[in-house]
Amino acid sequence: MDLATIVGIICALAAMAVGIGTGVAAFINIPSLLIVVGGTFGAAMVNYRFPQLIGAFAVAKQAFLYKPTSPTELIEELGKYAHQARREGILALESAAEEADDMFLKRALQLAVDGHEVPAIESILNNEIDQIKERHKSGAEIFTALASYSPAFGMIGTLIGLVLMLQSMNDPSTIGPSMAIALITTFYGAVMANLAFLPIAGKLRSRSQEELLYKELTMEGVLSISLGDNPRIVEQKLISYLEPRLRAMAERK
Amino acid sequence: MDLATIVGIICALAAMAVGIGTGVAAFINIPSLLIVVGGTFGAAMVNYRFPQLIGAFAVAKQAFLYKPTSPTELIEELGKYAHQARREGILALESAAEEADDMFLKRALQLAVDGHEVPAIESILNNEIDQIKERHKSGAEIFTALASYSPAFGMIGTLIGLVLMLQSMNDPSTIGPSMAIALITTFYGAVMANLAFLPIAGKLRSRSQEELLYKELTMEGVLSISLGDNPRIVEQKLISYLEPRLRAMAERK
Amino acid sequence: MDLATIVGIICALAAMAVGIGTGVAAFINIPSLLIVVGGTFGAAMVNYRFPQLIGAFAVAKQAFLYKPTSPTELIEELGKYAHQARREGILALESAAEEADDMFLKRALQLAVDGHEVPAIESILNNEIDQIKERHKSGAEIFTALASYSPAFGMIGTLIGLVLMLQSMNDPSTIGPSMAIALITTFYGAVMANLAFLPIAGKLRSRSQEELLYKELTMEGVLSISLGDNPRIVEQKLISYLEPRLRAMAERK
Amino acid sequence: MDLATIVGIICALAAMAVGIGTGVAAFINIPSLLIVVGGTFGAAMVNYRFPQLIGAFAVAKQAFLYKPTSPTELIEELGKYAHQARREGILALESAAEEADDMFLKRALQLAVDGHEVPAIESILNNEIDQIKERHKSGAEIFTALASYSPAFGMIGTLIGLVLMLQSMNDPSTIGPSMAIALITTFYGAVMANLAFLPIAGKLRSRSQEELLYKELTMEGVLSISLGDNPRIVEQKLISYLEPRLRAMAERK
Amino acid sequence: MDLATIVGIICALAAMAVGIGTGVAAFINIPSLLIVVGGTFGAAMVNYRFPQLIGAFAVAKQAFLYKPTSPTELIEELGKYAHQARREGILALESAAEEADDMFLKRALQLAVDGHEVPAIESILNNEIDQIKERHKSGAEIFTALASYSPAFGMIGTLIGLVLMLQSMNDPSTIGPSMAIALITTFYGAVMANLAFLPIAGKLRSRSQEELLYKELTMEGVLSISLGDNPRIVEQKLISYLEPRLRAMAERK
Repeated sequence: MDLATIVGIICALAAMAVGIGTGVAAFINIPSLLIVVGGTFGAAMVNYRFPQLIGAFAVAKQAFLYKPTSPTELIEELGKYAHQARREGILALESAAEEADDMFLKRALQLAVDGHEVPAIESILNNEIDQIKERHKSGAEIFTALASYSPAFGMIGTLIGLVLMLQSMNDPSTIGPSMAIALITTFYGAVMANLAFLPIAGKLRSRSQEELLYKELTMEGVLSISLGDNPRIVEQKLISYLEPRLRAMAERK
Repeated sequence: MDLATIVGIICALAAMAVGIGTGVAAFINIPSLLIVVGGTFGAAMVNYRFPQLIGAFAVAKQAFLYKPTSPTELIEELGKYAHQARREGILALESAAEEADDMFLKRALQLAVDGHEVPAIESILNNEIDQIKERHKSGAEIFTALASYSPAFGMIGTLIGLVLMLQSMNDPSTIGPSMAIALITTFYGAVMANLAFLPIAGKLRSRSQEELLYKELTMEGVLSISLGDNPRIVEQKLISYLEPRLRAMAERK
Repeated sequence: MDLATIVGIICALAAMAVGIGTGVAAFINIPSLLIVVGGTFGAAMVNYRFPQLIGAFAVAKQAFLYKPTSPTELIEELGKYAHQARREGILALESAAEEADDMFLKRALQLAVDGHEVPAIESILNNEIDQIKERHKSGAEIFTALASYSPAFGMIGTLIGLVLMLQSMNDPSTIGPSMAIALITTFYGAVMANLAFLPIAGKLRSRSQEELLYKELTMEGVLSISLGDNPRIVEQKLISYLEPRLRAMAERK
Repeated sequence: MDLATIVGIICALAAMAVGIGTGVAAFINIPSLLIVVGGTFGAAMVNYRFPQLIGAFAVAKQAFLYKPTSPTELIEELGKYAHQARREGILALESAAEEADDMFLKRALQLAVDGHEVPAIESILNNEIDQIKERHKSGAEIFTALASYSPAFGMIGTLIGLVLMLQSMNDPSTIGPSMAIALITTFYGAVMANLAFLPIAGKLRSRSQEELLYKELTMEGVLSISLGDNPRIVEQKLISYLEPRLRAMAERK
Repeated sequence: MDLATIVGIICALAAMAVGIGTGVAAFINIPSLLIVVGGTFGAAMVNYRFPQLIGAFAVAKQAFLYKPTSPTELIEELGKYAHQARREGILALESAAEEADDMFLKRALQLAVDGHEVPAIESILNNEIDQIKERHKSGAEIFTALASYSPAFGMIGTLIGLVLMLQSMNDPSTIGPSMAIALITTFYGAVMANLAFLPIAGKLRSRSQEELLYKELTMEGVLSISLGDNPRIVEQKLISYLEPRLRAMAERK
């Protein structure tokens, strides 16, 4: 898993532990937890079908386990293909297509080797990129929905606790602890939203951007190769997608 | 109905029941319910005309009862039509158009069989897709409006309760129960918004995406057939719309 | 006026009356009303010029009194014109242009009869549709602004009440009633926003959609007639704008 | 200044005065004012550079002092130029360009007189309109930022007051007044946001729309004249930008 | 650093100091600070990878240290290049490309000198501008995320404090100070969001606009030079991007 994720979770939990100190028992309340978790996921199940929810968690898992891709390596590789295609013709990329690890690169090269026309390849790959973007967006939306349901059910739980407490205020000494329990559901809802669902949704959005840049580089490169562009032009085109720091690295090579 | 919906509602209600325990009587208050329901639907009736409200509920019912469509089966079917059109000419799809269950597919095939030009077919079908999108969006918007009115009238009800209570605070022992009753409208508003209206609006949005993908596949396929594309190209084009998992399934066939 | 509007207002007021019961006197407070109404419209007058505010109320009145248009009747009418133009030439629509009730239809027919070229007609009508959309949007925005100012001044009024009360808490028995009065401005602000301004803004938005569909149908039809399209094609084109239920009705005719 | 602005401010202040009554002394608190004003503008200075802030206030001043432009007069004027250009050639507009008050009209006429090609004129003017829109948007954004900082610092001030009060609650009789003072910062923040910053931001947005319509009319008219359009067509084109009421006025002329 | 930034921070801190007065000790609470800082950055680390967070802080530092660019000087310089290219041919800009300080200008001139076709140069530079915009947007988004996490963890800290306090309300005299401590986390969260993260995010957005205008001017100018435009036309085109005040300055030169 991403190092920052682990450090981040530890960091936030440690910070809360400092605040809680030895009173940790006061923050463990099973019914409160059930209200928030049950309500949040219950609402999410009305909102989404099971395959969508499972899909979102799968996408999230992938986003955290994912090894960052290197755009500079991709550009280098595409430059190599460009040279090969120049020297030996586009059909020479057949073996490259077979060996490619990335499914999208494999498919793009295969379409180029098959001799489809450039606009046809562009339309198919663009379409695929749009579908990927759509799926990522929908994953992030599911976590954004969870992040809006969880504080809502936290508040609902607190209202339940308050109503019960206010109904039977015979013994003033019980008011404090009852209210403490009521507030714990709000606490759970806020922590779930801000330490889990919102960061995960944000992670999916930013991971999506990286992956789409990678896919666009792949498409741009393969299209440029199919057009028979000069390998130097292919690389120039792709390098303009990079941020300055990476661009310097790519040019040095 | 969708299994997840039923499980979700049970799950959320059970979670709240755990919190409420034996105090369920405290959470049933007819005037509070009337304020929230009356206010929410009253505001919605000022906002929308009756046919719009009824339409939104019809669309919502449909979204929950709807049997998920299978894009892979559709692609297979369109592939079959492409082969048939190749062998026997586009007119051979006349009987396919007559037998099609899906109204949109029927209409698309009919337009192709009638020999309209491809841009004309595309413009008519695109137009129809835009109108479908518009209707779905408007259904989701109505439920989003209900989801914003219900907590507002929950708060209005609580304000009514508080003002009445504060006006006549002669007997301190009645303060607690009065406030409990006041808070119940907020509780009703929050539950209605977060367990009904928001998930339904979300459901309409995500169902809309699925249905539009299905319609786009249909249009893309019929247009490709009308252009006389090679059946393999037709299938390749359509498969690029699918997510990897479904794509693998579609290619295996 | 729209039946739903009247039913909606009665419904919401009745719901609140149930909550208020016999304590209605506690909810009438002229200074509180003045703060919310004065503040809300004061802020709106800084925000908008008088003609804009008056215009917004005129548009809102129109939106509620408006007799729903029938797209199917419009299509039938345009189909009739298409047949007439086919048989007797486009000039035969001169009298239709003169008799048309709808100003936009009149203008569109007049432009067609005047023999302008189709792209010129399209550009003028499109421009007019854009301007209509802009005006509707600006009306809805004004009510959205009112809906955001009214709860804000409700809260400001409550703060005024609380500060005054807290400054002179000599007699504890007056705290309750003072706070009740303070809360009433929040109540007024919330009711004004959620029972008046927000539903009106929503009404303007949804009415705008209906009217724009009507205008687009008109434009599409007149352009198609100007192009000399087959009357059956004209109707086919227009019907694709309708929702399935209306489409069935239009086709039956 | 705009009459509505003055009436609006008086109206809102009078409404609040009704609520405050004779207790006005309780609402004047210099430290509270300093916290809200200092915090709000402090944050704004971190956010924007001085020239941006000064520019925003200059734009706001302009928006309130601005004499409403009359699109119908502009159309009449452009119609006059169209006739003149028809009769005496485009060069005859040289003197019109020199006499024009509006800088944008002057520039547009000058470009037309200089004999640039229509697409070049369109591109330059369009560009200028985009830049104007950008500047207006940025002015409105600065006031929107101020409107979000001021209630935030109002709340921060209230928190400061509450913490100080809670730290030393020796004398219960001081709790009320202390809390009153604490609440005043929230009051200041809310009034500043809702009676100043938000209405000003809204004013800039709606003034921007009017000014852009005026600029678009100017551009459309000058382009139409450059194309050598019939003066009647020029006027027809421009009139379609107007709302029905103004259109009737413009056509009567 | 930008003068406004320093004045702004001093101004906001002084304002708060006025409110706090001699009670400053009450506002220093290490555990509260740890909860807010740890929680905020913890959540941010789950949301973003380390290089992204570090990148955002680097971009923010750059935004504050950045010397404002002068569009008028750039236009003057591009005008000079246009004259030179007219007289001595585009290759004469080779030395200008070598001497240019701005990397983007250097690259644009180099592409022009290399004799690439104008659409190719435009596509490469446009692409680069899009990537710059994307990076700026992502920097601003990270600070917006921090600005939403910090008040959330402020509230979470307050909930922790309240729950602990309510659990053990034996000694009423401790309630005040305990609540004061609980509220301090909310105070920290609000100050961090409104005095640091939100203004920084706003700064990045407004700096981004300035920088993109500068880049667009550069691109527009170099493209115009490559097309062999008359130097006067080059300057006219660029000047239309400026606001009136700067335009007057640029024309005077």
